[in-house]
Amino acid sequence: MKASGFFINTLKDAPADAEIASHQLMLRAGMIRRVAGGIYTYMPLGLRAVRKIEVIVREEMNRAGALELLMPAVQPAELWQESQRWTQYGPELLRLKDRHQREFVIGPTHEEVITDIARKEIKSYRQMPVTFYQIQTKFRDEIRPRFGVMRGREFIMKDAYSFDQDKAGLEHSYQQMYEAYGRIFKRLGLVFRAVAADNGSIGGSGSHEFHVIADTGEDAIAYCPASDYAANVEAADALPLIEQRGEPQATLTKVATPNAEKCEKVAAILGVSLEHTVKSIVLAIDANAEVDASPLTPQGSGGSTPQIWLLLLRGDHTLNEVKLGKLPGATGYRLASEAEIIECFGTRPGYLGPIGTPKSVKVFADRTVAKMSDFIVGANEAGFHLTGVNWGRDLPEPVVADLRNVVAGDPSPDGKGALAICRGIEVGHVFQLGTRYSQALGATYLDESGKAQPMVMGCYGIGISRILGAAIEQNFDARGIIWPEAMAPFEVVICPIGYERSETVRMAAQGVYAKLLEMGIDVILDDRGERPGVMFADWELIGVPHRLVISERGLKESQFEYQGRRDAQPTLVEMTAAPELICAKIRAAFEY
Amino acid sequence: MKASGFFINTLKDAPADAEIASHQLMLRAGMIRRVAGGIYTYMPLGLRAVRKIEVIVREEMNRAGALELLMPAVQPAELWQESQRWTQYGPELLRLKDRHQREFVIGPTHEEVITDIARKEIKSYRQMPVTFYQIQTKFRDEIRPRFGVMRGREFIMKDAYSFDQDKAGLEHSYQQMYEAYGRIFKRLGLVFRAVAADNGSIGGSGSHEFHVIADTGEDAIAYCPASDYAANVEAADALPLIEQRGEPQATLTKVATPNAEKCEKVAAILGVSLEHTVKSIVLAIDANAEVDASPLTPQGSGGSTPQIWLLLLRGDHTLNEVKLGKLPGATGYRLASEAEIIECFGTRPGYLGPIGTPKSVKVFADRTVAKMSDFIVGANEAGFHLTGVNWGRDLPEPVVADLRNVVAGDPSPDGKGALAICRGIEVGHVFQLGTRYSQALGATYLDESGKAQPMVMGCYGIGISRILGAAIEQNFDARGIIWPEAMAPFEVVICPIGYERSETVRMAAQGVYAKLLEMGIDVILDDRGERPGVMFADWELIGVPHRLVISERGLKESQFEYQGRRDAQPTLVEMTAAPELICAKIRAAFEY
Repeated sequence: MKASGFFINTLKDAPADAEIASHQLMLRAGMIRRVAGGIYTYMPLGLRAVRKIEVIVREEMNRAGALELLMPAVQPAELWQESQRWTQYGPELLRLKDRHQREFVIGPTHEEVITDIARKEIKSYRQMPVTFYQIQTKFRDEIRPRFGVMRGREFIMKDAYSFDQDKAGLEHSYQQMYEAYGRIFKRLGLVFRAVAADNGSIGGSGSHEFHVIADTGEDAIAYCPASDYAANVEAADALPLIEQRGEPQATLTKVATPNAEKCEKVAAILGVSLEHTVKSIVLAIDANAEVDASPLTPQGSGGSTPQIWLLLLRGDHTLNEVKLGKLPGATGYRLASEAEIIECFGTRPGYLGPIGTPKSVKVFADRTVAKMSDFIVGANEAGFHLTGVNWGRDLPEPVVADLRNVVAGDPSPDGKGALAICRGIEVGHVFQLGTRYSQALGATYLDESGKAQPMVMGCYGIGISRILGAAIEQNFDARGIIWPEAMAPFEVVICPIGYERSETVRMAAQGVYAKLLEMGIDVILDDRGERPGVMFADWELIGVPHRLVISERGLKESQFEYQGRRDAQPTLVEMTAAPELICAKIRAAFEY
Repeated sequence: MKASGFFINTLKDAPADAEIASHQLMLRAGMIRRVAGGIYTYMPLGLRAVRKIEVIVREEMNRAGALELLMPAVQPAELWQESQRWTQYGPELLRLKDRHQREFVIGPTHEEVITDIARKEIKSYRQMPVTFYQIQTKFRDEIRPRFGVMRGREFIMKDAYSFDQDKAGLEHSYQQMYEAYGRIFKRLGLVFRAVAADNGSIGGSGSHEFHVIADTGEDAIAYCPASDYAANVEAADALPLIEQRGEPQATLTKVATPNAEKCEKVAAILGVSLEHTVKSIVLAIDANAEVDASPLTPQGSGGSTPQIWLLLLRGDHTLNEVKLGKLPGATGYRLASEAEIIECFGTRPGYLGPIGTPKSVKVFADRTVAKMSDFIVGANEAGFHLTGVNWGRDLPEPVVADLRNVVAGDPSPDGKGALAICRGIEVGHVFQLGTRYSQALGATYLDESGKAQPMVMGCYGIGISRILGAAIEQNFDARGIIWPEAMAPFEVVICPIGYERSETVRMAAQGVYAKLLEMGIDVILDDRGERPGVMFADWELIGVPHRLVISERGLKESQFEYQGRRDAQPTLVEMTAAPELICAKIRAAFEY
C-alpha cells in the first residue's frame, strides 16, 4: 500500500471527552470516528487492525472444530420472551417495532437465536458435539457509553455456542474453546491471563475471563508470574503468611494507646510493624435476613436481637466480602451499628478485641491471624490495647477462615511462587451455560436410548473491537500506539526523506517496497512527500512497529536507517540486508 | 473439511412459502434458516458461499483503489433529517428509539453517514479522489419480504461511495467501479449484463444496473449477444426494421373486415402477415395537465378540449410508455376516451387510421411504420380497413419517433448484431450521485484556488446475499443447485462407498483428500458412512461442482469415478491422475 492511495488523517489533539489513552490515540491516529454516542465508524486504518484480529480468531475457531455461521442482528421478541430475558434484561436491550408493529431487539448476544436453531436442527445425539460461532456486529444500549470501542454501544463480537449431550461433553467443548482462546491472545501478541471467574447474569457454572493486562484495566487480578495461576483478586485464595505459629514469648500487657483507633496508629505508638497488629471487624447477623445489595452499610437492628460476629484480620489486610459472603450463616450480614457494638463490647469501635468478649460473640480469625503469636489487639477499653496476645494461652482457638484479599507477594495458591497483582481488561469470556437456555426453549435431543434430553450448552465470547482498545492500553507511549505485529494496520512503514525531490531516494524506496511486498510483508510506503518530522510523528502515533528511513545521506553509504517502534535509537543497516532483517523481526514476533 | 466435523442437514421438502427455486433450494440444502419474516441465519454451508463472494468483491474493490471501512448499522436520525430522507423515505426505513428516547435508524444504505465522514475528514482537493467501501449487514423493512435472500429484510451489502472534485473526476471513479463490477461478476462465474438504467429515487444522473441473467428474473433486458450492449427493455432504442421504404406497388383499397378490431384478426381475414398491418393508438393531451401516475388510464376530458394524438405502430409491436413520455409535449398524456375518439374519428376504436382524420390530430409514426409501404390501416369506418396504404401518396409524411418496445431479433443499436431479450436479477448498481448529498449535508472542500466546492459523489452497491439467490436461479436443475466454482461452499466432494466397512476405500479416500487439500482445493470428504444414494442426493442438492466416487470395485482397477455436477454420466479416472484432473478443471473454471 502506498500512503498516497490510502487515507491518513491524524489529529494533533483528541476530543476532550476521550478519557483514556486508547480512545484518545484511536481518534488521533484516525482509526475510528464517532457517529453517535458509543457508535463509531472504523476508518480504513482501524478496520485493517480489526480484520487482522478476525482472521486469527477465525483460524483458531476453525482449528478447534467450531463452525462459522451468521445469525441476524435483528431478532424477534418472541425468542427473548421464551427465555424470559425479554423481562429480565434491562434497558441495555435495544427494542424496536417493525412496520407491522411486531417487536424485535437488536441482539446484544445470541443465546436465544442459536438455541432456536439447535432445537430445530439437532434431533439426535449423533449430531453432537457441535460448536457454532459467528463474528458479528452487536448492540448494547449502555446508559453511559465511554472509553471509545472499549465500552461502545455498537460493537463487534465473536460469539460461540457449544452443544453437548451431557456435562462431560460440555467440559470437553469448554476446554477446547479455553485452549483456542489462549492461542488467539498469544498469536495477537498480547500479555494476558485466563482468570477463574464467578458467573455473571448468564447463569450456569464454570467460567473463565480472559484479561489483557494493562495498568488502566477495570479489574484487579492476582496471578503467579511463575505459573498459569490467575484469579480475580476477589476470588483468589489467600493462604496463611505464617507457616507455623511461634511459641508465646511476650506477656499479655495492657498498654495505653490514646487516640489510636487504627492499627497504623497503634503500631506507630508502640514502635512495632503493622504486621503485629490485628484489627477487629464486628458484624451483625439478623435472623431470617434477606440478602441485601450492599451488606456493609450499617443498619439499625431488626425486631429480634442479631447474632454478633467478630472478624480478626492482620492490621495490613483488607476484608474480602465475596469470601465473607460464603461463610456458613453469613447470609444477611451487615456491619454492626455503634449501639450494638457498645452494648456487646462495652466500648466504642477502635479499641475492640477478642479478649473478654461475651460468649455469644462468634470469633473468626483469618488464616494468617490464626497463625500469629505475640500479637496486638484492642483491649475493649477506649484508649487501650493489649500486646503479647497468644492463642490458646490468652484466648480460645478461633474459627479459622479465608477472610482477606490477597496482596502482592502472597504465596500463590498453586504453590509455585509469589502472587503479583495487576489490572486487566476483559476481552474474552468462556461460560458453562448448562441447560439454562435449552430448557427454557425446549431444545432437546434423543439420546442413544431414544429418550429426549436437554442439550448441554456452553457460550464463548471475544470482544473483537474491545481487543483494539485493550491492545493499545497495554502498548503505547507518549508518541502514540505501539501495535503488536499481528494486529498492526501495517507491519512496516518506509519513510523516504525527499521522495519528490530525489530520484535516488525514490528508486531505493520503491525497490525495497517492492521487495517487502514480494516477501509477503504488509508494508506501506509513505510517498506523500511530507517532511520527516510529520512522517515520523504520523507513523509513531499510528503505531507501525517497524520503520525504515531512506535518505540521500544514508544511500551514499548504501544504508537505510531501521527503527523498531520500541527502540530508543535507529540502527543503520545495509540496503541489501534490510528486507531480510525486517522479515526476520516480523517472523520472530509471529512465533508464539 | 470432513463431513463428520461439518453440519449437514438437508431437507426433502421446502416449506410451502418458498416460492422460487433459489429459496427452496437454499432451505433444502441447509444454507439458510428462517428466524423471522425476511430474516435468516446463514448456516455454515451458506456462509461459506457468502464469504467466497466477499473475498472476490473485496479483492476487486481494493484493486480498483477503494478503501474498506466499516460504518455503523445504527445511525442517528439527525443525519437523515439533514438529507431530508427522514421524511422522504417510506416505512422501509426501520426507525427506533434508544433508552434516552433519541431517534435512530437501522441503515438500509449509508449515503448520510459517509457524507458526514467526508465533510469532517476531507478538507482539501488534495484528499480526492477517494472511494470508500464496506461490506455490512443492512436492513430494509420490506412490507412483504419474499424469495428468501433475494428480497429479505436483513441483508448483506457491499456499498461504496466515491468523492471527487468535479463531474469529470466522478466519471473516472464511476468507470473504475463499473470495470471492477464486471471483473467481480466474471470471477464469480455468473452470466451477467451491465444495463444502462434510469435513476431510481437516489437522484443524480448516469447509472448502470448489473443483472444476473435468469429466466426467473424480475426485469426484462434487451442485449446483444455479439457485443456488450444491454439495456432495460423499456430503455432500449428500437431501430427501424426496414432499411429503405419500398416503392408503392398496391392500390389504396377499402376492404371489409367485419369484427376485426385487432390487427391479428385483420391479417387473418386478409391472409397477410401481421407485419403488414399498422395499429392506431389515440391519446388525449390535456392542456396544463399534471403528470399522472398511471397516464394510460382513460379519463374524462378536463375543462378545455384536449389535443388528440394518433400513434401508429406496426401490428405486432407494443407501445413503450417511457419513450412516449419523453416526446415533446407529451406531459399529461392519457388514452383518449371512446367519446373523444368517436367525436374526432367518426367511428369507434378498432377501425381507426391516419387517412381522413381531422387536421388537428397530430400523427406520430414509429420508426418502422414510417419506412413501411403497401400497409394496412383502419378505414375510420366500422368493419372496414384500407390496404395498399403508402406514405406521401395516400397521406402526408408523419412525425417519426421511437415509440415501441424492442423485440428479440431487432437490430442492436450499436450495429453489431441482433438483440435478444432475457430476464435478469439486479445484483449491482452504480450511480452518479453528483452533489445531492454533499449539498444537503454541506460536504465541501477547498479547491486549488481556495474556494469551497461541494464534493461530487458516486455510489456503488452489490447485494452480496442477493448474489447467492441469483446464482442459484441461473444454475440449478431438478436435483439441486449447481454452484459456479468461485462461490461453491466446497469445490469437490469425495464420496467413498463403504467408508466404514472397507479399509481400502477409507485409505484411498483419505489419501486423495489429503492430496487435494495439499493442492489448495476446497474439498470435503463425506466420511459419514451414508449409503451412496443419500450421499449423492445430498451433494447434488448442495450443488458441489465436482464429485469423486471411491468404491472397492473401482479400486480393483485403480480407478475413481469422476462426475461434474452438469455431467450426465460419470467418467472413470486413474487414481493417480484424479487430483491433477480435478485441479485442472477448477483452474479452468477460475480463468476469466
